[in-house]
Amino acid sequence: MRDINKQTDIFYMKKAIQLAKKGQYTTQSNPNVGCIIVKNNKIIGIGWHIKPNTNHAEINALNMAGNLAYQGTAYISLEPCSHFGKTPPCCYALVQSGITRIVISALDPNPCISGNGIKYLKKSNIKITTGILLKQSKKINYGFFKRMQTNIPWIQIKMATSIDGKIAMHNGESKWITSPKSIQDVHKFRLLSTAILSTSQTIMIDNPLLTARPQQKNKMNYPQPIRIIIDSKNKIQPYHKFINELSTIWLIRIKKDNNFWPNHVKQIILPPYKNKINLIKLFNYLGQKNINAIWIECGAILFSKLLYLNIIDELIIYIAPKMLGHLSKPLYIMNKKIRLHETLQLKFKTIKFIGSDLRIILTPYKKINT
Amino acid sequence: MRDINKQTDIFYMKKAIQLAKKGQYTTQSNPNVGCIIVKNNKIIGIGWHIKPNTNHAEINALNMAGNLAYQGTAYISLEPCSHFGKTPPCCYALVQSGITRIVISALDPNPCISGNGIKYLKKSNIKITTGILLKQSKKINYGFFKRMQTNIPWIQIKMATSIDGKIAMHNGESKWITSPKSIQDVHKFRLLSTAILSTSQTIMIDNPLLTARPQQKNKMNYPQPIRIIIDSKNKIQPYHKFINELSTIWLIRIKKDNNFWPNHVKQIILPPYKNKINLIKLFNYLGQKNINAIWIECGAILFSKLLYLNIIDELIIYIAPKMLGHLSKPLYIMNKKIRLHETLQLKFKTIKFIGSDLRIILTPYKKINT
Repeated sequence: MRDINKQTDIFYMKKAIQLAKKGQYTTQSNPNVGCIIVKNNKIIGIGWHIKPNTNHAEINALNMAGNLAYQGTAYISLEPCSHFGKTPPCCYALVQSGITRIVISALDPNPCISGNGIKYLKKSNIKITTGILLKQSKKINYGFFKRMQTNIPWIQIKMATSIDGKIAMHNGESKWITSPKSIQDVHKFRLLSTAILSTSQTIMIDNPLLTARPQQKNKMNYPQPIRIIIDSKNKIQPYHKFINELSTIWLIRIKKDNNFWPNHVKQIILPPYKNKINLIKLFNYLGQKNINAIWIECGAILFSKLLYLNIIDELIIYIAPKMLGHLSKPLYIMNKKIRLHETLQLKFKTIKFIGSDLRIILTPYKKINT
Repeated sequence: MRDINKQTDIFYMKKAIQLAKKGQYTTQSNPNVGCIIVKNNKIIGIGWHIKPNTNHAEINALNMAGNLAYQGTAYISLEPCSHFGKTPPCCYALVQSGITRIVISALDPNPCISGNGIKYLKKSNIKITTGILLKQSKKINYGFFKRMQTNIPWIQIKMATSIDGKIAMHNGESKWITSPKSIQDVHKFRLLSTAILSTSQTIMIDNPLLTARPQQKNKMNYPQPIRIIIDSKNKIQPYHKFINELSTIWLIRIKKDNNFWPNHVKQIILPPYKNKINLIKLFNYLGQKNINAIWIECGAILFSKLLYLNIIDELIIYIAPKMLGHLSKPLYIMNKKIRLHETLQLKFKTIKFIGSDLRIILTPYKKINT
């Protein structure tokens, strides 16, 4: 019996997406993909992509199904690959298995190869259905999709403010405006990102480690995001605290210094613009380096610049129920005196209580098509 | 059959509170009260208090029940009165009706008479149950309860800000930071209040009418709140736009002026403190004048003073998804340079999307016991 009922397709695709999610902390520059193989309304194979240089989801599911896959249906959250990459193409294995129908959620976002897998499968007389739970399958790969389509990573920026929009007291004191639960929430976002980006200024003031330190034991051994520091004036020195943590650091600079740096620290030289790092070029560079998702933690200056450049995909703002007063440090710096209709317009996406704080997520008003 | 099951009590009290709510726009300085009379599991009488100088809820319900009330049960959201006020005591009528059991939600909050009604009823051998849905019945009378217990009205203050805590551009431009839906939401709050309080400063800058203008046709004829303007320097003149609207205006002043004022405008003279209106004395005065609930709309100066005095019960803040920049006007003015641990601490109560804006309601950290 063939499972061609749409409700059935949704049912199994949901499970495939759930499987895909299991890889969200480990697949890094690869997308999260899940696959379910079904025959006679029974699941006979499941698989997901775990990490780079290992089997794709389809191969794991086919391995589990074995010969039973013959005349079965495969549910895959992302179009299977048709080219030789780090592994042989999944399309080839799917055809070999004798599977007769494949349900795919999203097409490959890479414009150069999107649709090639489906073409190959159709030529082999496999019945294809696409677009099932498209929104959900894109959501688990927001970074991969954006990078593939724009060459720029998905960019999230985090700030912590009071009700009156202040990020520090007049003397710079900011530890801690928000509650421990908000800080723990930030660690979850850090762990989901390919890289954490900050500035030498933030290192000087707050001296953070910029590692992801989730409280849940089962997440403690996941790979750490790359730490990227904008350091156009070579202020970062080997003695800074965060250097002692062994996860990768990229110092984004205009020229190298002569320090002896440990192996996990890399100086990356980018062409300057007015003696500063050109931010657009930086994000393009990071896209080329296969960074899918960047989590930014910085001060008001970089935050304001990035908002002004309209390059941020999501603003995550933790609001503490406090009033710091007008002498405290502002969230958004805009030196031009502007009129109300010229102000930066955003859009609320989600709101959630995190401990005693409120977390709001905003997107640019003109939605970037991902 | 007597209805002494607790679930049954909750069922009917919920209905009594729903009835009480029908008076929320019209009972003004009186509390909202609802009453249900039940016999043999059938509702035989319903009533609610509509407006001052008319029947209390119990009398309306008894009138509907007529002789059927004999041996019935009454559900009343507030303790019935036992003294002659504007109407004869309800306790007397309840005893006369032959009702044998009365379920009461909240006791009378007036410390001088609280419990007297119950005493009287018990003496007449009526079985009494109290405290059913206490939180809900207090909630519909937050202003009445607070005034009765503290002699000060329930005080709500409304502000509209950007994400970065700004209430106007550098030049004072603030129309409109928030969306039309937020403005309509404000009119609902205005209509629920006994009085709207503002300052001559706000009249000078924004020239508002300060009337409640709900869009729903069925609410358009409800009584308008009293408009109270703090005007210590006699800046308000008869030509100001809001004077043309005929609902009551109280100008709170240090001394009278010699203008000819229309009948609906009253100058109220309060003793000054450093040539200004003493805010604590003002709120005490308004409590004496039976104002249950005050809705404040003002600028950052009065807002900051009231927060500092810790006299506000609820802050209602509409946050527009905009960034106005650090040169714009701040929400909270605090001239002293303080440390983070000294900052004003509040508590989130509710959050809700209103059109494209976010409405947050906050309370003081140390909850006032109402």
